[in-house]
Amino acid sequence: MTAPIPHPGRTLTETDRTRHRRLREQGSLDRAALDAILAAGFVCHLGVTVDGSVRVFPTVYGADGTTLYLHGSVASRSLLAAPEADVCVTVTHVDGLVLARSVFEHGVNYRSAMIYGVPRTVTDPEEKLAGLRCLTEQSAPGQWDYARRPNRKELAATALLALPLDEASVKIRTGAPDDGDGPDAALGLWAGTLPLHTRWGALRPDPALGPDITPPPHLTGRAGTPAS
Amino acid sequence: MTAPIPHPGRTLTETDRTRHRRLREQGSLDRAALDAILAAGFVCHLGVTVDGSVRVFPTVYGADGTTLYLHGSVASRSLLAAPEADVCVTVTHVDGLVLARSVFEHGVNYRSAMIYGVPRTVTDPEEKLAGLRCLTEQSAPGQWDYARRPNRKELAATALLALPLDEASVKIRTGAPDDGDGPDAALGLWAGTLPLHTRWGALRPDPALGPDITPPPHLTGRAGTPAS
Repeated sequence: MTAPIPHPGRTLTETDRTRHRRLREQGSLDRAALDAILAAGFVCHLGVTVDGSVRVFPTVYGADGTTLYLHGSVASRSLLAAPEADVCVTVTHVDGLVLARSVFEHGVNYRSAMIYGVPRTVTDPEEKLAGLRCLTEQSAPGQWDYARRPNRKELAATALLALPLDEASVKIRTGAPDDGDGPDAALGLWAGTLPLHTRWGALRPDPALGPDITPPPHLTGRAGTPAS
Repeated sequence: MTAPIPHPGRTLTETDRTRHRRLREQGSLDRAALDAILAAGFVCHLGVTVDGSVRVFPTVYGADGTTLYLHGSVASRSLLAAPEADVCVTVTHVDGLVLARSVFEHGVNYRSAMIYGVPRTVTDPEEKLAGLRCLTEQSAPGQWDYARRPNRKELAATALLALPLDEASVKIRTGAPDDGDGPDAALGLWAGTLPLHTRWGALRPDPALGPDITPPPHLTGRAGTPAS
């Protein structure tokens, strides 16, 4: 994952959209928490209005500490609709199930960030390359220097959007169920959490690959490592 | 996970929102593919317009083959905004990275479903209990019968929304990179996929729990099993 630029002690500024109204104990205004959630992932859900109706598209992203990058085909409806329009980008890591004594207190341990703003289409060639590098390295660190980089035709076919990391809301839930000190504790039921682990598996070579081509160390080193 | 009601051979009806315009080979109108994607998960991303701007909330769901259920506090802004309004619910499973010879052909293996519609608030007590059961059993099968069920006060504090599984779009990508037979194959670069595995970990008892309370078999049986 791309190492985020640290923002020690910085807090996110509240707006009407990011103010935590409910379950405030799960809300955070810690800028470092936002950076950590973004650094731990590479797939987001992009919410945008297309032809008057809300759409939520899963897509990859890159984040460099100040900007979140999204890309897609220049012909894509989701990206064509996004510039100059309000979007919401949500990144979620599901860490496990919260198994309480009552169904009502059941829940999920998770880390999530919602980022709001109006994305800008990146047109400057140098900025576009840097943004695509950030986006590529977010999911596949080492591949920008290893694989063939985009040529002029490929760059022209790719739309890159930049969303400032200015307006964001972070929510995190960790730990045990909340009903351990309530009346339901007397029911004698087991309670706790069931963690969810995400790991990279073993590399699967393309069947079209010649037998003499071995994977580079930046890829072999990831097999079996945690992924979020 | 809840077993979906099978729809052998049924196909999803295309609408303007669900028609696959780009990368049509990744699009599917197979109703069974939708059911399988929903059955394999329990967290969705709900897109809804609140105060004129798009929001994307991560939330748990239940799906019974004809209806997708969402729940939340009756005080939640996301759920208050959702009934009588168009929403988009997206469920995504990330299966791995597609590591091609060129950066341009890099991608993600995934399964995703986007469901569109106008949710209905469930008010009938029997239907509400059945929907909450479906939602609980989606993430934590066995817990509806094991844990204490919602009482009258908890039911009143919970809003349940029902979204028909009528208008949906499915996208799936599997397998090796697409540039194995192109000019980039001559570059001599390794290419293939890096799978991503999601598994349940070991149960973590609530520290407030007495030492004599052991977890039930429906929970112990899940540790170490695949989760999506």
